[in-house]
Amino acid sequence: MENMLEKEIAFLIEIDKLKTINRKTRIIHDSRLENDAEHSWHLAMMAVVLHKHANEPVDLFKVIKMLLIHDLVEIDAGDTFAYDTNGQSDKFEREIQAAKRLFGMLPSELEQQFLELWLEFEKKETNEAKFAASLDRLQPLIHNHLNQGDTWKKYNISKGQVMNRNKEIAEGSKALWDYAQLIIESSVQKGNLSE
Amino acid sequence: MENMLEKEIAFLIEIDKLKTINRKTRIIHDSRLENDAEHSWHLAMMAVVLHKHANEPVDLFKVIKMLLIHDLVEIDAGDTFAYDTNGQSDKFEREIQAAKRLFGMLPSELEQQFLELWLEFEKKETNEAKFAASLDRLQPLIHNHLNQGDTWKKYNISKGQVMNRNKEIAEGSKALWDYAQLIIESSVQKGNLSE
Repeated sequence: MENMLEKEIAFLIEIDKLKTINRKTRIIHDSRLENDAEHSWHLAMMAVVLHKHANEPVDLFKVIKMLLIHDLVEIDAGDTFAYDTNGQSDKFEREIQAAKRLFGMLPSELEQQFLELWLEFEKKETNEAKFAASLDRLQPLIHNHLNQGDTWKKYNISKGQVMNRNKEIAEGSKALWDYAQLIIESSVQKGNLSE
Repeated sequence: MENMLEKEIAFLIEIDKLKTINRKTRIIHDSRLENDAEHSWHLAMMAVVLHKHANEPVDLFKVIKMLLIHDLVEIDAGDTFAYDTNGQSDKFEREIQAAKRLFGMLPSELEQQFLELWLEFEKKETNEAKFAASLDRLQPLIHNHLNQGDTWKKYNISKGQVMNRNKEIAEGSKALWDYAQLIIESSVQKGNLSE
């Protein structure tokens, strides 16, 4: 038990690093970039609040655990920008190495559980993974919508790219994709997203 | 459904403010103060990793939901320092008002669920609430231990105060309280916490 606890605490200290991994998106109520830890919290809260809008009934407990751990690999692999096609090409290889190192710090039962959860999230095949992924897409969209198109303007992202990137929200929740399209259209009308 | 979704999204935008509420504790791998959102994520991860060390079996799903929402009231009420006895005296009154306003933004079913979860956490009577509270105590202790007694030194906190504040960790987990005492003792020996 003592050796287990030591491993677990070492892992919990290591993942504090997630608080230092900045995303491309700013938080809504201040001007600084959002970090991966607070992003993961926000997604978990979205799951609790929005799960009834999933296309199929989901195991909310599993969705939350997936979202809590989904970005841990970025401690080693860094945040890969959604619209960076080069970065996306070797993303999985970099992240699987990170998953092995990080989850490998844990006792084997937890290591196995986290690896399975993370792979399930990445594959986007189950109802839980599809819904979790749709929240991961929707959240920065809401932020950019409320931050006058911040990231889109900065990186010259067009409506077509945003639609293409985010249309998979519909896989997890048609209701949330309807809502997403409304705010994309509103951002175009306000001049915060180019046609 | 549309009106429900609007309320839910408005709430999810409002709680982004939790990312702007700073605590007294610094993060481990950088020098800035920790905010409540990333703190809540860290506690939820601690629950997933450490729940087997609880004194009694706990409903992990409930513990996680409690921890995700437990600090939302600080959006209105602010972070009350653990060793601020004046601030502690009217803390509950300030926080219940905040809970009513924030959770009142949600459709009634979620409002009721969050209010009950938050009150259960505050009362510390159930196994889940006791264990969640023990993690909320342990986390800043680990941070201060690794940050050379940061907050303790800054606010002249003694070992007696730290022991008194944190002994309730044992209510949720005797194993974690044993570990906590080890790091408190180690901090004293290193000169990071006064006798």
